[in-house]
Amino acid sequence: MQYVHAFEEGDGRDRMRLGGKGANLCEMTRIGLNVPPGFVITTEACLAYLADSHGELPAGLMDEAGRQMRALERKTGKTFGGADDPLLVSVRSGSAMSMPGMMDTILNLGLNETTLRGLIAQSGDERFARDAYRRFIHLFAKVALDIPDDVFDAEFEAAKDRAGVVADVDLSAEALAEICRRYLAIVKRETGHAFPDDPLQQLELAVKAVFGSWMGRRAVDYRREFNITAQQANGTAVNVMAMVFGNLGDDSATGVAFTRYPDTGENRLYGEYLNNAQGEDVVAGTRTPKPIDALADEMPQMYRQLVELRDRLEAHYREVQDFEFTIERGRLYCLQTRNGKMNATALVRSSVEMVADGLIDRRDALLRIAPDALEQLLFPRLDPGHATRPLATGLAASPGAAGGAAVFDADRAEQLGRTGQRVILVREETRPEDIHGFFAAQGILTARGGRTSHAAVVARGMGKPCVAGAEGIRVDARLREAHVGEEIVREGDLITIDGTTGDVYAGEVAMIEAEFSAELQTLLEWADEVATLEVRANADTPDDARRALRYGAVGIGLCRTERMFNDADRLPVVIDMILAEDREQRQRALGRLLPIQRQDFAGLFRVMSPRPVTIRLLDPPIHEFLPSEGQLVDEIARLAHLRDTVHGMETLGEAVDQIYRARDEQPVVRKLADPLLVEEAIERKETMLAKVRQLFEVNPMLGHRGVRLGLTFPEIYTMQIRAILEAAAECMREGLEVDAEIMVPQVCTAQELKRVKRLVDEARAEVQRDYDIDVPLRFGSMLEVVRACMRAENLAEEAEFFSFGTNDLTQATFSFSREDAENKFLPMYNQNRILQDNPFEVLDSKGVGRLMELAVEWGRSTRQEMPMGICGEHGGHPASIAFCHRIGLSYVSCSAPRVPVARLAAAHAVISGGVEVADRAA
Amino acid sequence: MQYVHAFEEGDGRDRMRLGGKGANLCEMTRIGLNVPPGFVITTEACLAYLADSHGELPAGLMDEAGRQMRALERKTGKTFGGADDPLLVSVRSGSAMSMPGMMDTILNLGLNETTLRGLIAQSGDERFARDAYRRFIHLFAKVALDIPDDVFDAEFEAAKDRAGVVADVDLSAEALAEICRRYLAIVKRETGHAFPDDPLQQLELAVKAVFGSWMGRRAVDYRREFNITAQQANGTAVNVMAMVFGNLGDDSATGVAFTRYPDTGENRLYGEYLNNAQGEDVVAGTRTPKPIDALADEMPQMYRQLVELRDRLEAHYREVQDFEFTIERGRLYCLQTRNGKMNATALVRSSVEMVADGLIDRRDALLRIAPDALEQLLFPRLDPGHATRPLATGLAASPGAAGGAAVFDADRAEQLGRTGQRVILVREETRPEDIHGFFAAQGILTARGGRTSHAAVVARGMGKPCVAGAEGIRVDARLREAHVGEEIVREGDLITIDGTTGDVYAGEVAMIEAEFSAELQTLLEWADEVATLEVRANADTPDDARRALRYGAVGIGLCRTERMFNDADRLPVVIDMILAEDREQRQRALGRLLPIQRQDFAGLFRVMSPRPVTIRLLDPPIHEFLPSEGQLVDEIARLAHLRDTVHGMETLGEAVDQIYRARDEQPVVRKLADPLLVEEAIERKETMLAKVRQLFEVNPMLGHRGVRLGLTFPEIYTMQIRAILEAAAECMREGLEVDAEIMVPQVCTAQELKRVKRLVDEARAEVQRDYDIDVPLRFGSMLEVVRACMRAENLAEEAEFFSFGTNDLTQATFSFSREDAENKFLPMYNQNRILQDNPFEVLDSKGVGRLMELAVEWGRSTRQEMPMGICGEHGGHPASIAFCHRIGLSYVSCSAPRVPVARLAAAHAVISGGVEVADRAA
Repeated sequence: MQYVHAFEEGDGRDRMRLGGKGANLCEMTRIGLNVPPGFVITTEACLAYLADSHGELPAGLMDEAGRQMRALERKTGKTFGGADDPLLVSVRSGSAMSMPGMMDTILNLGLNETTLRGLIAQSGDERFARDAYRRFIHLFAKVALDIPDDVFDAEFEAAKDRAGVVADVDLSAEALAEICRRYLAIVKRETGHAFPDDPLQQLELAVKAVFGSWMGRRAVDYRREFNITAQQANGTAVNVMAMVFGNLGDDSATGVAFTRYPDTGENRLYGEYLNNAQGEDVVAGTRTPKPIDALADEMPQMYRQLVELRDRLEAHYREVQDFEFTIERGRLYCLQTRNGKMNATALVRSSVEMVADGLIDRRDALLRIAPDALEQLLFPRLDPGHATRPLATGLAASPGAAGGAAVFDADRAEQLGRTGQRVILVREETRPEDIHGFFAAQGILTARGGRTSHAAVVARGMGKPCVAGAEGIRVDARLREAHVGEEIVREGDLITIDGTTGDVYAGEVAMIEAEFSAELQTLLEWADEVATLEVRANADTPDDARRALRYGAVGIGLCRTERMFNDADRLPVVIDMILAEDREQRQRALGRLLPIQRQDFAGLFRVMSPRPVTIRLLDPPIHEFLPSEGQLVDEIARLAHLRDTVHGMETLGEAVDQIYRARDEQPVVRKLADPLLVEEAIERKETMLAKVRQLFEVNPMLGHRGVRLGLTFPEIYTMQIRAILEAAAECMREGLEVDAEIMVPQVCTAQELKRVKRLVDEARAEVQRDYDIDVPLRFGSMLEVVRACMRAENLAEEAEFFSFGTNDLTQATFSFSREDAENKFLPMYNQNRILQDNPFEVLDSKGVGRLMELAVEWGRSTRQEMPMGICGEHGGHPASIAFCHRIGLSYVSCSAPRVPVARLAAAHAVISGGVEVADRAA
Repeated sequence: MQYVHAFEEGDGRDRMRLGGKGANLCEMTRIGLNVPPGFVITTEACLAYLADSHGELPAGLMDEAGRQMRALERKTGKTFGGADDPLLVSVRSGSAMSMPGMMDTILNLGLNETTLRGLIAQSGDERFARDAYRRFIHLFAKVALDIPDDVFDAEFEAAKDRAGVVADVDLSAEALAEICRRYLAIVKRETGHAFPDDPLQQLELAVKAVFGSWMGRRAVDYRREFNITAQQANGTAVNVMAMVFGNLGDDSATGVAFTRYPDTGENRLYGEYLNNAQGEDVVAGTRTPKPIDALADEMPQMYRQLVELRDRLEAHYREVQDFEFTIERGRLYCLQTRNGKMNATALVRSSVEMVADGLIDRRDALLRIAPDALEQLLFPRLDPGHATRPLATGLAASPGAAGGAAVFDADRAEQLGRTGQRVILVREETRPEDIHGFFAAQGILTARGGRTSHAAVVARGMGKPCVAGAEGIRVDARLREAHVGEEIVREGDLITIDGTTGDVYAGEVAMIEAEFSAELQTLLEWADEVATLEVRANADTPDDARRALRYGAVGIGLCRTERMFNDADRLPVVIDMILAEDREQRQRALGRLLPIQRQDFAGLFRVMSPRPVTIRLLDPPIHEFLPSEGQLVDEIARLAHLRDTVHGMETLGEAVDQIYRARDEQPVVRKLADPLLVEEAIERKETMLAKVRQLFEVNPMLGHRGVRLGLTFPEIYTMQIRAILEAAAECMREGLEVDAEIMVPQVCTAQELKRVKRLVDEARAEVQRDYDIDVPLRFGSMLEVVRACMRAENLAEEAEFFSFGTNDLTQATFSFSREDAENKFLPMYNQNRILQDNPFEVLDSKGVGRLMELAVEWGRSTRQEMPMGICGEHGGHPASIAFCHRIGLSYVSCSAPRVPVARLAAAHAVISGGVEVADRAA
């Protein structure tokens, strides 16, 4: 087995063996780009090494590497370990899946006291050579010898202090020589051995270290976070490449670039560079780099070559590239390229434009974008009318705005994030080990670093807003605070960042919704052409409905009538209905609700006409409309206190304002004029309290709700059904087309449907009589109770459509109460991989999905072509949508902002045959 | 179509058309018993009548009836409506299913002023004839003219008062003539028409009334209560039979008899009779009849004929018969026979004896007894050592003892029974319209009536204890009280009745369990020979286990380890474990629990050796071991009060005794010596309160429990597993064979099983090391979460057996919380037939069962021959057991008292091929 391949030998498509980076280096070499010569040690070698119980590299590997090294000597004319013109190499990891910053890199390998002298002589720049040696010792010690960074950092800072300089570049050759001596002493002290002198031994140790880092915490975390399976992740390759130097003077430079703007998608070279620097200086954010355009002035010829390189890369890869380059004394090298991670805006724009340019076709364009990424486009942005003055301003490193509590380290961000708190991670600069903080935070703010700094790149990949290099901010992570001039931001203080402008604000700033770009419209139209699943929205009000239409919903798949009950002007009537002691009292309250609900529905029908509107009859247990027991006890106590201590009208009114905080009756109670009314209010509260106690349920999720409630008090459903039918009739009189569907919640047997259908038929006959209009109507059943799925054949005899309520169905299938599970054990279950995902976010296709599949099959065995949809939260989740497509559902319904996501996911489902593709942008 | 059949024509097997009673009359006639001649009008006529929109009898029916009446005249030599020797007939209902007392009867039909004179002349007994007329007018008015009973009763009592007599028989002919006149006037007043004179018109009205009563409330209620389907119940036939009179003097008599003793099964004629009486006098309980043995002295020849009749009936029907007879002036007539309703004791004994006599075979014997009926045999009886003196004594009308609150009418019994209260229905005498009270009551007590009175017959059929004719008791239903000498029993007062002795007690008397009879042992051995399903018991303690063995369980199918946590001596340790702030503290508490649990398990293994014992690891959420929030708040307030107000040691101790009612720490707190300890107790309570609040769950049924809890705190499961293994090792050292199974609750994914299995493997290795014994063990999974069923293939890779927990599975499948459903909407669902049964009592084969069937199939696709059982409450329910048999389960596990029921049901399942036969005794 051949473990080592020279770049010119390797197969650019063989990412599994060569890793993404290695394959690309081979590919770039093959197509004639100016890549420094080098070779790749395969992932197979990595796996063999990791599997070896003695920690030995596979037999023969180092011999092969030695042969390749001699070939490298021939190509470069230098000698590895040579005293005159030493060959130095970089050693980098590279796995099949791109994991930015996850693995480690060693530069300048091959240096020792002997080759150092050669490098000084060859470069004619002792400072450069000693700096290279310093970097090598530091990186090698850290990566291969596992000595912590900070010992070296402290030594380096101390040296700068001694020398009285601020910038690294101001250190003299002597100072650097002293640093190297101290570094070597540190290594001796920490490891008990002298620093390895032999370049081949250095190489062997470095290869082992890179291989070992594959199982390091950061890499394992990353793979877990992004669900990278063992199959996708088969170890890392090692790329050994001849060093080229961007720090050989002012005619040298190093930089990173994107073939298009990664935050807007604009078709223009984007990047940053530093003169006289090595690659890590750009990425680490320790010096603030210059924009790439500046290169056009500084080195026009180099700039032209760079643009040419860009064109060749895109033409070849047909994908936006993120590449690294180095200019060594006027010669341009391409060190690395990979598909560029972009935010959704950029992905959408570049996709549409690449189709226009003929680089890719529409299906490619659709597949380039993970549906979830579109949600970024719908992130709120700051209200343009806001008048808050920024506290500080940095670089607009990843677009979108976010607000939350300031936290100063990743662990804390994770902790608070887990409790559901919105946080902004604030750091001097970020490092790969901060990755878990990124996952937890709403946005990232750094005091140092550019738009290609670690913080910026990672945030953009995640689609999270980021402001980088806000240099006015001084971060003290230890004290958990940041200073901006006189102001201090402490942990927990609210801040807002705007990654589109780079502004940072104290407190929370008002935000507004995003608008669709023309490119997104285009892309979603392409998606609609491909998709077979319809996308509807969950919407309860005309405003919701209008929003859903804007987002491209073709109908309303779920209107929750109970939300209409909770408005301040209706709640007292709803409570009257609940407190009614007999049917007549209840009827009276319902009589007052009827016209209100009719107007609600008419509003929806008008907005949606002629599209379908699916209305679910009352679902939650009625005690949800009452205050909690504790609240009522408090209120009664407050009112009693009021009665006992306050006299006189005016005082009373004020006191009521202050003391009384009940959600339902404030307007009424405000008008209280005398203690008698207080007495009445107490009485009503006490009636409510008694009712709350009577209605108490041990497991309300499994209690007296949905159709169970509807059949206990049929007058409630009758009111709702009449309101729907009358609203439809009114709209039809206005000449509007109405497509109404009534849906019964919590159904477990066909008998329930039969009975509700009878109510519908009666109401329909009455409305026909009163309005002389026969309202067309479809009658359907939610499938959110397991038994409903098991009885789907029978339910399909009554129901004209099914709508899976996967929130409740998931709870019942797992016997997990969502509220309890997510607070108590689900995080542990996910962390320990007992469950791969949170089933309330990702539809559990193996369990819940299997049940759904059976129900679809059984339901259609009774009623062929029966329309079936899903209206749980999963309706907006791409993998779940792919599953819904696969089992033959007709539509998904989700919250309005998820509609674009769902439209794209529905197209993906068709293209990929029901399996959602890996999440590229994540 | 022929609607009317003479007895000698009808096919005795055609119960569907002729009704049970009619078919039997035909059958008896056919085999030559002396049955008065008569004819049957078929159930088809009934259905045709009920379907007719004009309320008319089918065309030609009355012509047919008229022809049959003329044939009857020929057979009897009497004339229907004749003035000289009038033919009188009885008209009785009779449906395919036996419904005692449900339908109405009319006697002496054919009487009017003309025929009355003929009857006087023929009988030579004016008093008899006028009494017959009185009875006819009353019954006809009630049944055919729908005039309420009480008007006639009041008139009759008034007449007795006027005449100054107590017994009916002491009324003179003149007094009876006056009563008849007044009765006829009542009819005129109530209906506006004269009483119908024409015998044929009387017949037509009577037939219509009988048909109509089929849809009357009582009949509909009865059919619903006993789940008699439309198919089984296809209307009622009408039986018209020539009257014979048991009230023609002292050489006449009437009685009812069983071919064997219906309360013991003893093979001896059993019955009661009254001289000079009509049948209704015996049944109604208005006169207390004589035991049948007295007939041997009074009319030896008649008695011999009766014994001969008995033998012929049993030989022919091969079933115990309940028959009616009349002796008219020295001639014995058999008026009716039907299969005797017997209590379980009698059914068991007669079954075994009938097999011994060669009348039936073993399978017949098994099928004669509805499995549920066996539970009667396990009803508690009064502790023989009790010293309570009876308040009163009546007839031992239906065996067994029962205690509960006295209630004085059926509606009230139903009301209170519905709230779960145990009640004893106390009545002067009962009537068919009291039937709903029987269903609700634990036992029945009447002041009047014999052992064949309505109360006695119905109670025996239901297997409920009954004391009848306790004449020392005076019942005042209006005041809701009963007087026994000086004592007054008011509604709600506790009383106890012993239906085996006839004794009635005030208050509650200690009871003990029943013992198995030899016949029951035999019968159950036959059942075990037939059955393929094994029957195990749910048992948590060695006592439970011994009981289960006595009842014939072949193992323990469910041991709930948490029940062991609740004992007073363990609970404080369990609470320490829950309050533990870290793993170490928790380990310490668990270390104290380990030896206790080890002893628990060792006790079980010793009793059950070598039978299987399935132990379920901790299932409920841990907050169940803590007091409720309200309780703790109260206790803290009480303790604070104690601290603030009580000084001095002695007072404190007393106060604690009085004030402190916490369930866990009473022994500790009692020892409190100074206020500091009170302070400590308050502190602990406050810690518990904080924990309770922290552990609060919105839907505890779907919360942090079972394996979810076990994986969150693996040390708990580890302790339990070690305790099980160590207990097994200890027993094995003692030379006992141990068959232990560990079962994991609330499993939803194979990953959970994998992790618990790892704990088991670790513990097993440790125990092997410590005891040098490899404990054999089977590892299995509960299937009580829907997802577990959907993933059965995967679970079967880890689990060696499955046990369906159908209680939880039913909750999850229906999304019904049992506690909430049974209080809130389930009664309404059952009443309105939205659901046929309470799914928590009767396994829902269509929904839950379908899921189980899939899980069985899928599980066995991975692991063939995998043992699977059920351990929910359904495991003791016959129809559910039949279902479990049908889907191929290996065993059922139920509470010990249900084990005999389950054994018989398992045999039935085999004989009937998995469909439980109708409940004969119910």
